[in-house]
Parts: sequence; structure tokens; C-alpha cells
Amino acid sequence: MRREITGFSNPLVKQVRSLREKKHRKREGLFLAEGLRIMTEAREAGFLPEMLFRCADRDAHSLEIVLEGEVLTAGGDVIETSADILSKLSGKDNAQTVIGVYHEHPTALSDIDRNAAPIWLVAQAMRDPGNLGTMLRTGDAVGAGGLILIDDCTDPFSVEAVRASMGAIFTQKIVQCRWAEFVEWLRGGPGQLVGTSLQTELDYQDPSYQSPCFILTGNEAQGMPADYAAECDLLVKMPMRGKADSLNAAVATAVMAYEVLNQFRRT
Amino acid sequence: MRREITGFSNPLVKQVRSLREKKHRKREGLFLAEGLRIMTEAREAGFLPEMLFRCADRDAHSLEIVLEGEVLTAGGDVIETSADILSKLSGKDNAQTVIGVYHEHPTALSDIDRNAAPIWLVAQAMRDPGNLGTMLRTGDAVGAGGLILIDDCTDPFSVEAVRASMGAIFTQKIVQCRWAEFVEWLRGGPGQLVGTSLQTELDYQDPSYQSPCFILTGNEAQGMPADYAAECDLLVKMPMRGKADSLNAAVATAVMAYEVLNQFRRT
Repeated sequence: MRREITGFSNPLVKQVRSLREKKHRKREGLFLAEGLRIMTEAREAGFLPEMLFRCADRDAHSLEIVLEGEVLTAGGDVIETSADILSKLSGKDNAQTVIGVYHEHPTALSDIDRNAAPIWLVAQAMRDPGNLGTMLRTGDAVGAGGLILIDDCTDPFSVEAVRASMGAIFTQKIVQCRWAEFVEWLRGGPGQLVGTSLQTELDYQDPSYQSPCFILTGNEAQGMPADYAAECDLLVKMPMRGKADSLNAAVATAVMAYEVLNQFRRT
Repeated sequence: MRREITGFSNPLVKQVRSLREKKHRKREGLFLAEGLRIMTEAREAGFLPEMLFRCADRDAHSLEIVLEGEVLTAGGDVIETSADILSKLSGKDNAQTVIGVYHEHPTALSDIDRNAAPIWLVAQAMRDPGNLGTMLRTGDAVGAGGLILIDDCTDPFSVEAVRASMGAIFTQKIVQCRWAEFVEWLRGGPGQLVGTSLQTELDYQDPSYQSPCFILTGNEAQGMPADYAAECDLLVKMPMRGKADSLNAAVATAVMAYEVLNQFRRT
């Protein structure tokens, strides 16, 4: 249905704005994605928003018109509102001209087809939403199947993580599980578990990686726990030529993932 | 001199807190760096803070004692204060237990010795402080000499950029200049300018890179202007196997920089 909201005090504005907080996202099973570019990627990946908020003052882009039509056909709402209310929803001064409210779509580990992709990313206790979203974006770029989140990671459906993912929140499978579950599932089929670590001398370019390759990146500050490292089939390190002993977690994941992709595409 | 500050209304608290804003940093020529780890890296790189704020309630770590001694010897101030005031200075709830006020230390392009390092990073209109700080951190890791900032980049001395640099703000040379100046300087000596771009079919693993290699990364949203791309000796692209057409700018820089490092370390 197409409707209009003009007042800040409208209960729907308050409800949607509350989706910037994790507890409300989890209660409603909904999250926010902003911008026509990301929302078009979502549509192409088969995800339509339940609600689409748009700025009533602006002419719609042709892609937005297509998107609105599909939302309405699917029984969703297109809500005409003001730039100020869009800013309030997004928490940014310069809000995008469209904001979508989507159903969260986590995948169960048991529903993953590990052979559907040569690379899978695994993050342990990743705390920074920018890092997590960037890992999703990198996963998309290297043709990974998805991101498996272990332990207490930041919420992949937060506004910041969705923004950093640049749409990959919709194209990458997202699994949240405990380490023991993951290991049991992993060892029930093919799969090489490769951890990046500071506690090894093995150069990341030396091994031959095997598909499906699971690239494990540990917590930003502590790295991964020792027993997780012990479970890895390979622990590797990137050369570090400076004063610092580590890379940003999302950067380390990307450098590692491109090495694996580069090996696979050579053969 | 060692002294104590207990009140939020102390003018020094207000002055130091104001360094979180760019205009005050530029006026004072000072910036903030937080945490013993980064401040120890600074010391090892030859930088001592003009003022060191510490939490009076905590016993000092041995590295902090060394640092405090050097600050006092050099004529700087060690200021005992409360955790609450440290939080106010840093703008974070869980502030580090030490915060330093440092002199900004930009380098003039003409003071760069291009042959001092095999890799140099160049960022054009980089807007996100996390990306800029992460590029510094990556530069340190690959043994780059520094980061050259072209056009209107975010301030490398902001709290967010310094934090993301993990100390590399002190180990990497930082140059800010205009494109025309940079090109004139670059062409006055050896140096290969390599741009990452979506407008090329040349795979980033195909060329042989030459030292000193200048890796140019364009603005997060627009990429680099066409005339900057035209000036590059090589334009290369990373394979993109998914739906998205680009990587995060700091990630792209890192993937590229590790390729160059990997080529150089093989020879």
C-alpha cells in the first residue's frame, strides 16, 4: 500500500527508528538498509523490503520506480515522507533518499552447501561493525559463499555493518553459531580451515589451499583463542615489514582471501 | 612537570578536548593519541607527547613509567587526572588509561626520500578516517615509506584516524599536497605510479611492479578523476567475482600493496 507520513510523532517512525538498536531488531526480526544502490542489489538477490520509505520531495529514479512497483505487488508498503524524517530514521544528516525495512535472513549452518563456493569466511568475536560489513563486501568480491560468525560478534544487521557491506548483506549467506557446532559441521565434510595468526612462521603464500577453504579471522584485539588455532588445518601469517605486528582484521581477511582466490584461479 | 587536574572545568581539559575538532588541531598544531601501546610506538619512533594525561587511580605499567620519565626529561607535562576526565578527553566511555598530546608532524613532499622505501601509498580525496588510518597501518605492515594525501582528504590527525592507524601515524611519513605538485615531484625522479581502477581490464597480478612503486587509491565513492587515471603508468584491477563492483578503499589498497610486496620479496 502507498501511504504518507508527515509527522515525527507517527508511531511507525518511532518503531522504524528503533531498529537502529539491536534489541528492537531482534524482537521485530527486521533491519534497515539505506540507499537505492544497496536496495537494488537486494532486489536482484531476491529480497524486497517490507516497507520502503522515500523522500516525497524528489522525483524517483527509474530503478526506484521498479523497486516500488515490486514492493507494492508483494504486499509491502511504500511510504512517502520528508527528508527530515528520513534523516531521523537513518541517524545521518544527509540521509539517503530511500530507506528499506527488511526481514533479517540468517542462515542455519545445516542449510549451508559448502560446495556452492570455493571460499567461506569465518569471523570469531568480530566486534567492529565496519570490519564485519567490510568482510561481507570482500566475501562478495572474492566469490565467497558467506560469512560464518562465531562467538559474540557484532550484529551483522546493524545499520553500520549493512552500510559497510555495500549490499553484500543480501548476497552473502550469514550464519551465527558456536565454535563447537561449527567444528562438528566442518568436519562432517570436505573443507580446509585456515587461520591467520601471529603465532606461526608459515608464510601465507607457501601452502596450497584447497576448496572449499574456510578462512578464520580472530577478534580484533586478542586474535583467536589457542584451542581454535589448534583446530586449524593451517595457520599462516602475512609478512609484516614495519613496527606493528598485525593488520586490521578486515584487511587481513581480504589479503588472505585474495591469495586463496589467486591460487584457485591459476589452476 | 608533574601536576594534577581534578576538575572538568579546568581550562586545559577544555583545550585538550577541543583537539577532537580539526580547526582546533590546526590552530594549535597538536593532536591526540590514546593508549600505552600507540604511545610506546610513538616513543620508539622518536615522538614524545607534549602532555601525557594519566589515570591517577591506577598503577603505571613499566612502559608507562619509562615514557613518563622521558616526557618529564624533555620538558613535557605528566598530568594526573581521573578516569572520568580521560573519558571526556577521548570521547569514549572506556577511555585508555593514558592519552598523549603530540605535535602534528606532516612532511613536505620535497623532504621525502623516495628511495627510502620500495612502496608509497597515495590516497586521493579519502573521506573516511577509519579508511585513512587503516591505510597507514597497512603501509607500515608492507614496509611503505608513507602516505601521500591528495585533494581534500580527511584529517590524518583526527582521533579516529590515529586510532585506526594503530601507531602508524608515527612511523609513516605523511604528506598533504595538490595533485599537480605531486605529479611534478614524482616525474622528477624514479617511480612507477599504479592506480587501482574499475576502468581497466589489466589484472593486478599481471604487471611487474617497479620500486619505488606509488599505489594510488581514489575516493571511496567516485574513484579517482579521469585525468589522474590518465597520468598513471599502470591502471590495474582486482578480480571481482560477486555482485559488487568495488572493494572498500582501504581493503583495495592493502590487496594491491601486498601484491607489490610479494613480487618484490620474490626477487
